[in-house]
Amino acid sequence: MNDLRYFDDYEVGQVLTSTKHTVTEEESIGFAKVWDPQPFHIDKQAAKASLYGGLTCCTAHIFAINSMLGSLMEPKLAAMAGLGFDDMRIHQPLRPGDTVYFTTECTSLRRSKTKPDRGIIQTHTHLINQHEEFVFSTLVTMMVRTRPGV
Amino acid sequence: MNDLRYFDDYEVGQVLTSTKHTVTEEESIGFAKVWDPQPFHIDKQAAKASLYGGLTCCTAHIFAINSMLGSLMEPKLAAMAGLGFDDMRIHQPLRPGDTVYFTTECTSLRRSKTKPDRGIIQTHTHLINQHEEFVFSTLVTMMVRTRPGV
Repeated sequence: MNDLRYFDDYEVGQVLTSTKHTVTEEESIGFAKVWDPQPFHIDKQAAKASLYGGLTCCTAHIFAINSMLGSLMEPKLAAMAGLGFDDMRIHQPLRPGDTVYFTTECTSLRRSKTKPDRGIIQTHTHLINQHEEFVFSTLVTMMVRTRPGV
Repeated sequence: MNDLRYFDDYEVGQVLTSTKHTVTEEESIGFAKVWDPQPFHIDKQAAKASLYGGLTCCTAHIFAINSMLGSLMEPKLAAMAGLGFDDMRIHQPLRPGDTVYFTTECTSLRRSKTKPDRGIIQTHTHLINQHEEFVFSTLVTMMVRTRPGV
């Protein structure tokens, strides 16, 4: 039951790696149709004429894939709240057919002085494609539960 | 045909306001089931026991709503690429039943010196709920097309 990744399980410098996800055209267009219906995300002809010369995933989709890869990691994070994201950069387009995974490096740990059940963790996350190129990166700040009974 | 919002149509200090979106429980749970399947985003009982005492939208969903409200604005932005996001903060939970809109203030404009067809725009975006409280905010950096023939 207690197989969660708690605040206490992190160390600064520790790197975790996710599983992989392959983006399909159906997923990419389907996501963008709802959340970012720009022609170059949902229409192949418009995408061909765009800066990137073909369909690209919208940023909200890239963000969601990053979130999913994090959520699927085992053990699950004892997350209490997402607080913020800094230095979020899109380094290059993510396209249907690409396969991505992320690495997340713990860059800072701060235990709450007033609330012993929690701490603040900062991580630097990179989404990496099948050519080992950075697609997306961000600094993530989260409130995470401390291990019960410690 | 040319009813787009180009780089030239922005001024520093200009504020644009989006339409409104009401989050349903179905949308919130459905989104989280795919992109952030944490118990407190997809299970009402687990959500009750969480920090926020009830279902909350996952961050990727908040980001996607922000994206959608931007995409639906008229005239459409002549976007070429999303480049990055800074100082992204979640100020308080977004919950099913909440109605949000955003305001986006142009904070910086930089025309490309080498490529006359484009410029870089920075905006400060706030997602605001039905109580006029900030839910989410971020600085957005985008590459935007300049008006053709100007």
